[in-house]
Amino acid sequence: MRLKIKKILKSDDSIIGKKIKVYGWVKSVRDQKNFAFIEINDGSSFSSLQGVIENSNEDFRKILEISTGASLCLSGEVVKSPGKNQTYEMKIEHIEIIGNCSEDFPLQKKRHSFEFLRTISHLRHRTNTGGAINRVRNSLIFNTHKFFHAKDFFYIQTPIITSSDTEGAGDLFRVTTLKDLKKPEIEDFFKKKTFLTVSGQLNAEALAMGLSDVYTFGPTFRAENSHTSRHLAEFWMLEPEMAFCDLKGDIELAQDYIKSMIKAILKENDEDMQFFDQFIEKGLLERLNHVLDSNFEILTYTKAIDTLLKAKNQKFEFPVFWGCDLQSEHERFLTEQHVKRPVVVIDYPKDLKAFYMKDNDDGKTVAAMDILVPKIGEITGGSQREDSYEKLLKKIKDKNLDLDIYKWYLDLRRYGSAPHSGFGVGFERLLQFITGIENIREVIAFPRAAGTCDF
Amino acid sequence: MRLKIKKILKSDDSIIGKKIKVYGWVKSVRDQKNFAFIEINDGSSFSSLQGVIENSNEDFRKILEISTGASLCLSGEVVKSPGKNQTYEMKIEHIEIIGNCSEDFPLQKKRHSFEFLRTISHLRHRTNTGGAINRVRNSLIFNTHKFFHAKDFFYIQTPIITSSDTEGAGDLFRVTTLKDLKKPEIEDFFKKKTFLTVSGQLNAEALAMGLSDVYTFGPTFRAENSHTSRHLAEFWMLEPEMAFCDLKGDIELAQDYIKSMIKAILKENDEDMQFFDQFIEKGLLERLNHVLDSNFEILTYTKAIDTLLKAKNQKFEFPVFWGCDLQSEHERFLTEQHVKRPVVVIDYPKDLKAFYMKDNDDGKTVAAMDILVPKIGEITGGSQREDSYEKLLKKIKDKNLDLDIYKWYLDLRRYGSAPHSGFGVGFERLLQFITGIENIREVIAFPRAAGTCDF
Repeated sequence: MRLKIKKILKSDDSIIGKKIKVYGWVKSVRDQKNFAFIEINDGSSFSSLQGVIENSNEDFRKILEISTGASLCLSGEVVKSPGKNQTYEMKIEHIEIIGNCSEDFPLQKKRHSFEFLRTISHLRHRTNTGGAINRVRNSLIFNTHKFFHAKDFFYIQTPIITSSDTEGAGDLFRVTTLKDLKKPEIEDFFKKKTFLTVSGQLNAEALAMGLSDVYTFGPTFRAENSHTSRHLAEFWMLEPEMAFCDLKGDIELAQDYIKSMIKAILKENDEDMQFFDQFIEKGLLERLNHVLDSNFEILTYTKAIDTLLKAKNQKFEFPVFWGCDLQSEHERFLTEQHVKRPVVVIDYPKDLKAFYMKDNDDGKTVAAMDILVPKIGEITGGSQREDSYEKLLKKIKDKNLDLDIYKWYLDLRRYGSAPHSGFGVGFERLLQFITGIENIREVIAFPRAAGTCDF
Repeated sequence: MRLKIKKILKSDDSIIGKKIKVYGWVKSVRDQKNFAFIEINDGSSFSSLQGVIENSNEDFRKILEISTGASLCLSGEVVKSPGKNQTYEMKIEHIEIIGNCSEDFPLQKKRHSFEFLRTISHLRHRTNTGGAINRVRNSLIFNTHKFFHAKDFFYIQTPIITSSDTEGAGDLFRVTTLKDLKKPEIEDFFKKKTFLTVSGQLNAEALAMGLSDVYTFGPTFRAENSHTSRHLAEFWMLEPEMAFCDLKGDIELAQDYIKSMIKAILKENDEDMQFFDQFIEKGLLERLNHVLDSNFEILTYTKAIDTLLKAKNQKFEFPVFWGCDLQSEHERFLTEQHVKRPVVVIDYPKDLKAFYMKDNDDGKTVAAMDILVPKIGEITGGSQREDSYEKLLKKIKDKNLDLDIYKWYLDLRRYGSAPHSGFGVGFERLLQFITGIENIREVIAFPRAAGTCDF
């Protein structure tokens, strides 16, 4: 019977004595003359399985041939481990070497820098950190789907290739089959100019008007020439959109989502999270548990500016005034120094935010929200959307956006409009928040960024 | 208490007498003088909720204002329905009109052609068919994740922007930030020529070597100028990839996956499937149950050609000979006429298939498989991958592919190589297969095809 290593190590004692097969890659081989240890990993578990083979076994001679990184099939019996690092181990009866590993294998038993590992993205998931990131990423997505499924949300797929751009944000990738971009757009594949999407929100709004609660989760793109530890040119974004939901409901859902994900990962990926806490960010578990135990403080932008202006002992690089964009230093002061827990800043000046956000009654601010958490800063942003046809039309005209492109979007306000809200979570940033990994290029398998498109 | 309509209609009698609120969009209003019926739908269920309001209620006058498509909140008490179309209905106590619907609303109570509905993709999910498709699509994806999660597969995200192209297939979309494509590639965003991916397979192979079992599920692209009912320029593809797995295991998993999905949808989306059976494809349920009850017949390509050549009474448009590509007419003959159940054709001539497929010992064929089902033809294709470094190197050279681009891919055969296999499922085609919908543009919310990039 073939078993994954996770199943063996997480089993109860009923597994003792079972004859099993394990397929995986060698982490280490230790030859102790009378017997030898083989550590093997198949990705399913942080801990590897230890196999023990005695020198009386005819496969013992194979020990000399096996190098780190080789793929093997080990057959044998599960026994209780006398060591304290694992509960069960395998008494090896047979070793099958499936694919040996060339001597220049870069992942020998030593620490490698993340920078170096990025140059071998096709192999780095075989390291302890790489495996743990992939397991947490996988759990996080499955739990995301479970979370929304339980609330009767529709998982929808919004388009990647688009002719509109949600925020008028610039920095778009052009998608084309033309050989010469000076040719008229009508000659291009879609008979118009097309780009990679920066957000699925507008399309998600259309589907929410009829399906009530939806979320899109897919790749989004920014052609920003950023070389920071927080930017990717291609990243995954989660965007829930709810009809009959105002900003308050939006904030509640976002808070519920973030806490539910922390809770699920702490439970399901305990070994990976212990590893991150010990080797990646000391105090990670404490930081996450603190978020879990906190009620998120709601603060208006106006109050936030007030607080920043009153923070006499705090030097900020960027000037603070009503109407300024909150910089990372401001956000972190609010969440780390001022309230010492997650903060939801609401009601931003309308000039700072996108055209589709709902005007507040004060005429100056919009029903936007950004959630800030200690150490990371902004983890999600969202808003209630403008649901009045007249007001939205005026906003589109005021921003000089192409009315023709937004005709269908305006339609949503003519045929059974409803208050609706949503938020966006940059999925890789959420992973940074949960794992403590510093650079965003580590939490996605094959990162795309300015000048970086390998593998 | 706010409830989704699905929850009400699928409840047991304990719901009778409960005071609830329902938010949704009006399907119809029927004024019977002494009382009126309002049918309201929120997307959660095929059936709408029927609300009944008496003319003594002070909100009765609002009936005159409400048009089809308006968004409402109905409050009232759940009662047993005397009608035979539903189990429960609502005795309305209060009507709140949230957003009325302009008189030019195109979805009045009558049948519309799919062609017309495509011109209003931002609204068509509010129709019976559109709602059903979205519910089935959502279920199918969630069940896909559940299926692979239960088998300890990792859900991985392979890149969308790529500098290699899996099959050397041509017909790629260029991704660029250049204003002039005559400029040197080094000046482009990624400092090289980049495209939209046609498959995540090569990257999935890398991750399978270490994580054992993975699947990627994301958008893929073809810049083919096709105007058929089976082609999209942007579609979602499921691609599982398994280490330590040969073609036999690959076929078993694909069969298990297809049957599990049919079973889940028949169970979870019974009302939607009844509707498709009645109005979209008569006999749909019988066709699906037949697939469910069948063992998939395995047939070598050579045997398949033999069978086609012997089919004397069958006229084929395309000539049949060993080495010919199987055309749709051939595939459908095999599955519909010859074995009358799903057929797995294996061991194709190597010149017909991609460079990465594993050579069979005969020197002429490769370990490929295509699964053909009645009425649809090919539903999935896969293969065992070449795991020998030398053989793969030779194949890459023979096909004149750029060795530099495939260096990392070859590495996978140098560091603990293992037999591995996978397959690809065009997700929208699977949806066509399960729903009986004729045109692929109906099963994705906002279709992209040659000349089509609206919304």
